[in-house]
Amino acid sequence: MPVTKSPRLLLPDADISGPLFVGIDLGGTNIKAALVDGQGQMVAFHTEPTNVQNGPDDAAIRMGHSVELLAHCVGLARSDIAAVGLGTPGPQDLSTGVLLKPGNFPGWENFPVRDRVAEHCGHAVTYANDATAAAYGEFWVGSGRDDTSLILLTLGTGVGGGIIIHDMTIEGAHSHGSECGHIIVDSSPTARMCPCGQPGHLEAYASATALKARASERIRDGGVGTLADAVNQGEPLTPILIGNHAEQGDQLAMSLVMETADWLAIGIVTLMHTIDPSAIILGGAMTFGRDEHPVGRAFLDRIDTCIRRHTFPTLAKKTALRFATLGGHAGSIGAAGLGRLTWKQQNS
Amino acid sequence: MPVTKSPRLLLPDADISGPLFVGIDLGGTNIKAALVDGQGQMVAFHTEPTNVQNGPDDAAIRMGHSVELLAHCVGLARSDIAAVGLGTPGPQDLSTGVLLKPGNFPGWENFPVRDRVAEHCGHAVTYANDATAAAYGEFWVGSGRDDTSLILLTLGTGVGGGIIIHDMTIEGAHSHGSECGHIIVDSSPTARMCPCGQPGHLEAYASATALKARASERIRDGGVGTLADAVNQGEPLTPILIGNHAEQGDQLAMSLVMETADWLAIGIVTLMHTIDPSAIILGGAMTFGRDEHPVGRAFLDRIDTCIRRHTFPTLAKKTALRFATLGGHAGSIGAAGLGRLTWKQQNS
Repeated sequence: MPVTKSPRLLLPDADISGPLFVGIDLGGTNIKAALVDGQGQMVAFHTEPTNVQNGPDDAAIRMGHSVELLAHCVGLARSDIAAVGLGTPGPQDLSTGVLLKPGNFPGWENFPVRDRVAEHCGHAVTYANDATAAAYGEFWVGSGRDDTSLILLTLGTGVGGGIIIHDMTIEGAHSHGSECGHIIVDSSPTARMCPCGQPGHLEAYASATALKARASERIRDGGVGTLADAVNQGEPLTPILIGNHAEQGDQLAMSLVMETADWLAIGIVTLMHTIDPSAIILGGAMTFGRDEHPVGRAFLDRIDTCIRRHTFPTLAKKTALRFATLGGHAGSIGAAGLGRLTWKQQNS
Repeated sequence: MPVTKSPRLLLPDADISGPLFVGIDLGGTNIKAALVDGQGQMVAFHTEPTNVQNGPDDAAIRMGHSVELLAHCVGLARSDIAAVGLGTPGPQDLSTGVLLKPGNFPGWENFPVRDRVAEHCGHAVTYANDATAAAYGEFWVGSGRDDTSLILLTLGTGVGGGIIIHDMTIEGAHSHGSECGHIIVDSSPTARMCPCGQPGHLEAYASATALKARASERIRDGGVGTLADAVNQGEPLTPILIGNHAEQGDQLAMSLVMETADWLAIGIVTLMHTIDPSAIILGGAMTFGRDEHPVGRAFLDRIDTCIRRHTFPTLAKKTALRFATLGGHAGSIGAAGLGRLTWKQQNS
């Protein structure tokens, strides 16, 4: 097993005379932390396993300690860091900083994550939903850096959402703002069930889990082709497998990708008619290679075509639709950016 | 024909030493203007026919003049008014203040309404969508005066929407924000067509026009009962007729009202999962007598029940659902309030 040095200094020559910010992104597998300068450049980053099974207190100590690790990286003390931001999955109470009942974190219920991390890093912590933090990252220095507002949809195991309007995050009155995966896209009696237990939500159609379920059903119902053959021969059904077979011309695989695009477009149109952002950004692992691959490009084109069937022509023309660019760093950079916003407000 | 004195002074004893604001609400039938004090109390109002057929210049002159009329009402000159707001139907370009192609205003295309009214009243004018202005009115001093955020859905010929979050209106990057009537609630191939030309939008199900269309189809397809009898005997089909028959126990009429509630709930759940406001407010003419009548109460109860089937239990519990209280004055009071917000920003 290769030993990766962490934290890792990326920009040894960065201007460390300006204020520096740390953003922490708590995931079910890893804790990622980024040291970011005032222009949103990542100076250094640190990653380590979350070790969910060790409980939230253990992770909070290590999240807090990551601030010191990153500060040391550039020869500073943790007190030299201007501000700290933290993004975690929901459900959460953003106003009190409490993680409520996070799905992939058994035993972490009702944990006051914001204040525990604050205690261990010696800084007040700006707390956000992880998808909102990622959206702010893309807005600040990523795919949406030239936009005045954006919505990020993260396509992975679930469908996350983040809405940013002029440096403001839409958190909601009850911490349920920006939960775009739970837009209703199918109100029919045969609507698919969302993992949240309600019918017809976007996540029940456009997540990796949903794509696999739809693929499985199609193959079970007699779908044929190279994808079906591979699965019937025991290959594990994954979005990557589906994407690969789609790229090789398998019609069933391509139709599954296009169906995902169609459902996404339904949700996106609703967002265009309520938020009307400058740009819609698609991120997360399930983006079929993004702009770099023909399936990714076909996926985006199909969403665009389907949007045009459901919205006003000029609005479709004016609203940008593109992939995210910060990859797995969006959440930590965005969390640092949200920490910076709080710091700016306090120092203005 | 009774002569109504207009403008009409409502609060002769209002504190006219504080700043006063005028809000103008341009409708297809009437121009309404309100003189409002800093606490949102309507001191006086003025209403006159829009006379769409006389063209936009004629109306702009009269809208501008209404500021002077209202100022005179309380012994002031138009220059004594602190700020002026204006709400008009869309589509519009809010940034340039231009009315684009308003449906019920033939011949008014691309009219620079904001600047023309400003010219005629001697004040800079804060310009908004009429439903957004009404939402702000309800937020400031109406049904949502104790809420931190709200969404107003106005149910009338169409379905309008206004989203207010902490004194901020959601206008969108291309003036299409808050167009909640164009949320997709039905993505099936048999979705109804919205007057905007796109399928499956909320307005195609929950407007007065849509209710009448659905009723008409049900009666044509053999629906029976007192409503069907009345319509078959030539009575004009209106939401009021449907509401009256529902109140008298007609099952077809009641099912049409309940169906409207179900479609609204689908759209509302999507709004709860994206905006997550403190409250959802229902306004407009098609509210079946609101809290005052059993059908209005049954309508609200049914929306509530249907929301609970599609959202998180705690969110359903925490989000208020109620009727608007400012009636036909919401738009003009709200426009005055938006003028006041601009004035406050400029004087802070």
